[in-house]
Amino acid sequence: MTNEAKASASRPQANERSGQAAAAKPKEKPFFEKVALIGLGLIGSSLSHVMRREGLAGTISGAARSEKTLRRAAELGLADSFHQDPAEAVRDADLVFLNVPVGAMGPVAERIRPALKKGAILTDVGSVKQSVIRDVSPHVPEGVHFIPGHPIAGTEQSGPDAGFPELFENRWCLLTPLPGTDEKALDRLTRFWQACGSHVETMDPAHHDLVLGITSHLPHLIAYNIVATAADLEEVTESEVIKYSAGGFRDFTRLAASDPVMWRDVFLNNREAVLELLGRFMEDLHALQRAIRWGEGDKLYEVFSRSRRIRREIIEAGQDTPAPNFGRR
Amino acid sequence: MTNEAKASASRPQANERSGQAAAAKPKEKPFFEKVALIGLGLIGSSLSHVMRREGLAGTISGAARSEKTLRRAAELGLADSFHQDPAEAVRDADLVFLNVPVGAMGPVAERIRPALKKGAILTDVGSVKQSVIRDVSPHVPEGVHFIPGHPIAGTEQSGPDAGFPELFENRWCLLTPLPGTDEKALDRLTRFWQACGSHVETMDPAHHDLVLGITSHLPHLIAYNIVATAADLEEVTESEVIKYSAGGFRDFTRLAASDPVMWRDVFLNNREAVLELLGRFMEDLHALQRAIRWGEGDKLYEVFSRSRRIRREIIEAGQDTPAPNFGRR
Repeated sequence: MTNEAKASASRPQANERSGQAAAAKPKEKPFFEKVALIGLGLIGSSLSHVMRREGLAGTISGAARSEKTLRRAAELGLADSFHQDPAEAVRDADLVFLNVPVGAMGPVAERIRPALKKGAILTDVGSVKQSVIRDVSPHVPEGVHFIPGHPIAGTEQSGPDAGFPELFENRWCLLTPLPGTDEKALDRLTRFWQACGSHVETMDPAHHDLVLGITSHLPHLIAYNIVATAADLEEVTESEVIKYSAGGFRDFTRLAASDPVMWRDVFLNNREAVLELLGRFMEDLHALQRAIRWGEGDKLYEVFSRSRRIRREIIEAGQDTPAPNFGRR
Repeated sequence: MTNEAKASASRPQANERSGQAAAAKPKEKPFFEKVALIGLGLIGSSLSHVMRREGLAGTISGAARSEKTLRRAAELGLADSFHQDPAEAVRDADLVFLNVPVGAMGPVAERIRPALKKGAILTDVGSVKQSVIRDVSPHVPEGVHFIPGHPIAGTEQSGPDAGFPELFENRWCLLTPLPGTDEKALDRLTRFWQACGSHVETMDPAHHDLVLGITSHLPHLIAYNIVATAADLEEVTESEVIKYSAGGFRDFTRLAASDPVMWRDVFLNNREAVLELLGRFMEDLHALQRAIRWGEGDKLYEVFSRSRRIRREIIEAGQDTPAPNFGRR
């Protein structure tokens, strides 16, 4: 299948909102008088940095639950005003970002509800979309444009120090608008993410949760699991696991160093898709297990020789580096 | 457990042959009149580069099965003479490296047997040690010092172009000498690897195969498996898997881009350890699966929050970069 054919095959699922469409009209940068960042971790702080660099916001208000985070965010100048109460942060804001674990989206939405400005865009960056829609929608007042979103970008680090303005560059941002979403609001949010350096697509929320289930959630679950298996082995000391980790294990520890609260919430809230994908993964693993037990070299070779092409296509799509070992030193 | 306590806990299993021990006697660089590299892929070509840089060999002879590899190796100047017959390459060599897939070790050893020089050191770089000992030992002539070895270093790339002189720097090299191994030969090979930038330890072959089973073999099997699962999903297009791979999946594709022949042979030859470890991994995964199904957030959080420490210790041990996302661009 050619790349073009593949792109067109995926079109029923996802509609790119950049490229050809953007070329038809002038791609002016969006500007918001006031942007509220609810949550000032990796994503919130990166949004602050890129908005400052690109001049996307007049003022930025920031909210975080912990005083420590707020204090550090203030030291870093991540916003112009800081609030422990998210409702205070969203007052008069034209664009509100919910950058909290997906399990906290509902309670936060409920809390900010009375303070949301009519005409404001309310969006989020959660890794699960159906649960966010389920939890947030009931709290969205008439006249506020709720557009769920998810930038496919991150690192294993978290907290207000973890952000940097290039985080979203050349990464995809998926928006999962609800039926009847205001086109102007959707267009403005699309241009916001494009101004952050992202490619933007819209996608059905259920499909999003399945796609991210395989490209993000299952990989993290597997990474956490293998680190746990290694840590619990009685026959191999932890010191040995650490010393000889360059054989491959170290790669998994990076994903497994991600924020445990964020990931707990992802698995609690994308349960069905993850369990379905985990079932497939285990079936495939049982087949490999049997091939090893039976000494079926041809079967192993066949499975192992398929993956190079996918790696190459990921590199060609600009989603990873061609440098060996990720170019790390 | 402190780092010191852990290091001492691992001591019954592995004996470091550098550091304090090396400080006691002058650490002169070993020099071999002639070194034979049987196999000129990633490891063979990296050995050539580092030997040239450090002046460890008078002349280097190279052997490879395929004419294409030999031709390319000649263009790159990886050796001073090139041979399709490994027996020709090892003639008069003082140090012979077997850099071939572990399944090929036995046949190659049988072939070079009549040409090995008395007093020569014969070693290998295979990822499994018990099978190499089983397959190579019967072909080692009296007076030749066979010392199995394994540098824990690599990239996802293979072939004569993949090598670089820093590959072994600050990586561990495990030697699994047989009972009665000549101490002088062992010391000379140890100093060779130290001159390549490696830390050297000796280890029992069975323990090696278990340790590498968890730090290298199982991670590769899991990586190959998840790439296969993703590729076979009918509900998610391959184009989507590639585009949104930055959510975590892309990391696995790097390991899964490794040489399929090398890895087929590893699993066929370290069957018992891999099946045992795979069993543990699956048990742990079933526990996580149940925690997700039952919505046990505390259990998930507990497992997820354990791994950050291991990541930190790997970084502190100099075995990975602290830079987010491996510092890749």
